[in-house]
This record gives sequence, C-alpha cells and structure tokens, in this order.
Amino acid sequence: MVGDTLVAAVVKANAYGLGVDAVAPCLFAQGCRHFFVAHTEEGVNLRTILPVEANIYVLHGPSRGEEEYFVRNKLTPVLNNLYQIELWKKFAITSCVKLPAILHVDTGIARLGLNLRQALSLFAEAAEYLPYFDLCYVMSHLSCSGSSSNYQNLRQLKLFSHIVKLLPQVKASLANSEGIFLGAAYHFDLVRPGAALYGLNPTSNPMNPMLNVVSLHAPIIQITVVTKKTKVGYGSRYIAHPGTILATIPVGYADGYMRKISNTGFCYVKDYKLKVVGAVSMDLTIIDVTNLPHDMLYIGQQIELLGEHYGADDLAKAADTIGYEILTGLGNRYNRSVKT
Amino acid sequence: MVGDTLVAAVVKANAYGLGVDAVAPCLFAQGCRHFFVAHTEEGVNLRTILPVEANIYVLHGPSRGEEEYFVRNKLTPVLNNLYQIELWKKFAITSCVKLPAILHVDTGIARLGLNLRQALSLFAEAAEYLPYFDLCYVMSHLSCSGSSSNYQNLRQLKLFSHIVKLLPQVKASLANSEGIFLGAAYHFDLVRPGAALYGLNPTSNPMNPMLNVVSLHAPIIQITVVTKKTKVGYGSRYIAHPGTILATIPVGYADGYMRKISNTGFCYVKDYKLKVVGAVSMDLTIIDVTNLPHDMLYIGQQIELLGEHYGADDLAKAADTIGYEILTGLGNRYNRSVKT
Repeated sequence: MVGDTLVAAVVKANAYGLGVDAVAPCLFAQGCRHFFVAHTEEGVNLRTILPVEANIYVLHGPSRGEEEYFVRNKLTPVLNNLYQIELWKKFAITSCVKLPAILHVDTGIARLGLNLRQALSLFAEAAEYLPYFDLCYVMSHLSCSGSSSNYQNLRQLKLFSHIVKLLPQVKASLANSEGIFLGAAYHFDLVRPGAALYGLNPTSNPMNPMLNVVSLHAPIIQITVVTKKTKVGYGSRYIAHPGTILATIPVGYADGYMRKISNTGFCYVKDYKLKVVGAVSMDLTIIDVTNLPHDMLYIGQQIELLGEHYGADDLAKAADTIGYEILTGLGNRYNRSVKT
Repeated sequence: MVGDTLVAAVVKANAYGLGVDAVAPCLFAQGCRHFFVAHTEEGVNLRTILPVEANIYVLHGPSRGEEEYFVRNKLTPVLNNLYQIELWKKFAITSCVKLPAILHVDTGIARLGLNLRQALSLFAEAAEYLPYFDLCYVMSHLSCSGSSSNYQNLRQLKLFSHIVKLLPQVKASLANSEGIFLGAAYHFDLVRPGAALYGLNPTSNPMNPMLNVVSLHAPIIQITVVTKKTKVGYGSRYIAHPGTILATIPVGYADGYMRKISNTGFCYVKDYKLKVVGAVSMDLTIIDVTNLPHDMLYIGQQIELLGEHYGADDLAKAADTIGYEILTGLGNRYNRSVKT
C-alpha cells in the first residue's frame, strides 16, 4: 500500500517470463493480495500457487464456456465489452449470486474496454446490469505512459476521472508501472505495476529508480583462439582477426536471446565487458573474450547476460525493442531460481 | 533414407518451438531413427519420449558432471573440442567401455568443433583417443547454406571432404536443411534437417519446396467499431479512421508474436487478408477487420496467424528476422496439437 492506494502485482505471461511459481509466492509473502493475469488459464494456474486470500483478476475476461472456471477458482474477470458483460450477467442469473467483476473502460488505446458511449449507456441502464455484479473496480489503461510528456496521458486521466465520478461507489484503477511515476493523480485506489516489479525502468528518465532483480548466466562451452582471419557464425557476419579469442555459450534465439542482438549486444564477466560477435544462432552465441584475463577464461566460466552491469533494458536497446520483450522472451531451457 | 543417405531429424529447442512431445513420436512412426538435440537435458527428456531404438545425439556435447546422464539415457554426445574429448575419454576409461560419439570439426563457422589444426593433430595421435570411442560420425556445420551461391559452401565442402578422407572408416555428416538442397555432394552418410521438417523454406528460391505443416490460430475477443479518429495501441502508433472495424486477439509478444510485427504483419480469415495495426502488446494484438464480411466477424472467430496463406517465413519478413526465430519463439500459452 502506498498512501491510500493499494499496490497490485501484474504476474501475467509467467510473471513477465521470470516464473510465476516463484514470483507470486514472494510477492504474497511481502503482503501483496491483488494479482493480475491475462488469460483464464493463467488464473487457474495461479490459484494453485496462491492461498485463497489472494485476489486474482483476469484481464482478458471470460470467453463463452469459461464462466465456471472463474467461480470454481475464485477468479475475478475484467469485463471488457458488452459481450463479456452479457455473458457474466447471464451466469450470475443462472448461479443466483452476485458475481465479482472489474469494469474496463477504454480511454485511449482501442484495445480492450468499453468505449465512452458504451460506458455512459451502461451507466444509464445501471439497473439492467449492475445488480448482478459486485463491482470491485472500474479500470482503464494508459497507452503512452512511457513518455511522461505525452499529452495523451492527461487526456486519458481526465476522461477516466470523469467516468469514476459517474460511479462514486466503485473503486478505481488506472496506472500501470509507468503510470505510477506520472504522479499521485494517476494512482486512484489501486495501481497495477508489472514491469517495475521486475526491475525495468518505468520512467522516461535514463536513471532507473528500480533495483535490478534479474540476472541471467550461461557457461562457456568452447574457447576458440583465432590464429588467422576467421569468419564467425551464420552468414559470416563477423570477421575475427588473429589474436582474437572467442567463446561460445549455449544460449541462442530459441532462448529469447534475440537475433537482433547479433553483433550488437554485450555481456559481462565481473566488470569485463564482452561483445556478442556474429549472428546469434538458435542455441548458441559467440562472444569476444579477448580482453578477459587468462585466469578468468575457462570452460564453465559463467557469463552474465543480464545483471547489474547490463539489464533487460540495455539488452533491449541492442535488440531494438523494449525490456518487456526481453523478459517475456526468456525461454524454457533456463533454470530459474530465487536468489536468497 | 534418401539414396544411401540417412535422414536424421533435428528436434532441438522443443522441435523448433512446435512441441517435441508430439513431433518426435510422429517422426519415429515415419521411420526416423536418428534425432539431434542441443542440450543434455533435451536428450534426457527425448529419451522419455522415444523408444530405445532411437539414436539421440546431443550437439552441445557433455559438460563436466553430465557424463553419467549420457550413458544412463543412451545419448551420444557430439565432441566439439579437446576439452570434451578429454572428458569423454576419461569417462570411457573409468567405465571400461568404448563410448559412442560424433566428432565435430569446424570448417568455417568458428562456433563449435575442432579447428583443422586440432583435428589433424588428433588424427595423428589417433591411438591416444580413438580406441576409447565408438565414432558414429564425423560432422561439420555449414555457415552460409542459406545462400546457395555463397562460395563459403564450396570451401566448407572441400575442407570437410578432405577431413572425411583422413577417417575412411568413419561415416560423415555435413548438411542441415539448406545444405541438403545444395546438392548430393553435400549429403554424405547422414543429413540433419530441422527447418525443412517444419515447413520453413530451405532454399534461396522464393518457391518453398516444403509443405506448410504449421498453423496457428487465435480467437477475436473484442470488436471495436471506430466512429471517430482513434489512437490505437501503445504509443498511439496507429490512427484508425471512422468506419474502421478493429478486432483484438489474445496473443502478443509474450507469445512470440514479436513487437516488430507492429503495423507490418498480416493474418487471415479464410482468404481475407487482415493487417496488424498499432503496437503488438505483451498479451494482445489489434487487427483491422474492416474488410471481413459481417457474417464472419464475431467474438470467437478464429484468426489464422500462421498457415497456408501466411507461413512463418512470411511473418518473419514482417518481423525482420527468419522463420526459425518465429517458430522457436512460439510461447507456452498456445495449445499445441497434431492435426490428424
């Protein structure tokens, strides 16, 4: 809780690729009681991980035939459109109980949520729908919060504030990680950080206020001393000159170490910065370890692909994407563990 | 088998993202008896899937401490360097048995494998090592086989042929999918297709000789009729005009539907081509469905993201990568099934 605002945790996409089995119980142990997932299946799985006191919200809402799963697993749907509202109302009538729900109003992303016109007409016909729901929150989602100066943030805030006033008895939630850092006006009753929990920078400022919480290592499995001009990797996209020492690590784009990192990414051993050379292969990557002191260069040496020196946001820059895609792309062949 | 050449199947990276549990037994049922994986763990897992008659080769070779797993699970390592050769020799001595192995010689990728000098000196001291191994194959790997006119292919072929002659009693394997299509000279005793098995184009020719074998669908979960100029998705990277109809599907970059597909990719309903609009989100993508006939536009309608109309190679073009990265990036939230 921050002031009067509750802090929920967004743990969709396997807790942003890090492993929801380990992440969700950690957050619960720290006092978190509100969790967001995207899919119904993620909610069903999360319920097997978390105690019954945890509130689990499903952002995509119910599809036809899934209603039972929500009730049986104590999942709260986000109702995004008239179709889902109708579905949930029908199920409430059949079940003869008021069903919990979050109502999602779109304020400027055109992705999920009722548009303003639909929301207003729903509120006007409140007696038709609202008696069937126990409305936990009305929510919306920011589209441009990564850029604090974007006027779209203020536009969405104003629209959302207007909607919130129309439902004075219902709590409100707007901000994702980046929205939290836009200021208290964006906080309402519940904030929904994801990225920030996992150490990604939730601000437009290059100084990341969050601590790094993710590290990723892979061992050297081959060392190659280059004695003549040598073509490296697929497509010979790098030429190594005599005197260069190359190391091969068993991580590639099938592990989410994206092909765009080819010839652009870096990794570390302690403070030694090492460059990815040549094309990243499916299961292997080659790095230039020429500068590494000899006593640190051996088969089995652990290379830091993500960590204090070089986080997901940094690797994302090399891959021309965002840290979110780096984390959620982390593959199944890594051993995931919680640092104690 | 093609002529005298055996055809192995490369099923590393969860059978290129498609699901090795389903793919490997299909291939075995078709008569395939030689399977390649990258990691030891993949080999251990594959042994639980395939009968004992299946030969399983581990491309990355053994790390220290893994030797037992190889023997216990009847896995054959690829020995890539002197370190692994020494490790495997020691284990053979300890075990008092000749151990199976593939010997990997690097002919021009500088990734894994003995270099020529190391290989020659190994052959010169054959009595030191070879008595401990039951050498199934000597292998190498092509670096530029995606481009049939690249002279590097011929250079690698010549070098490999030279090495093969030095080990006349040992069978040889050079070609991956693309190498197979470079011609019979590249085939030797065993070819190792991966990509081609999964329908990716293994030639430089735009006409793909392989059949499409992969399809991917996701349902519409929201339909948005645009009535005024509307900003779409994160960063408002697309503007929809009145009259546009948008549909939202529950697939995003956390599912391997890469962010680069934003505003560039396409998908299909039957023959109707639909454009991805705005930024692909972590769990959601928005598509323009304006052209879809009204009776085909409903919640639950299945959108074809990959299939006959638009394969992994096509989507890869939109994402500025290769089909391999599209397939191996397919996430864990899809239900995978074998079409019968």
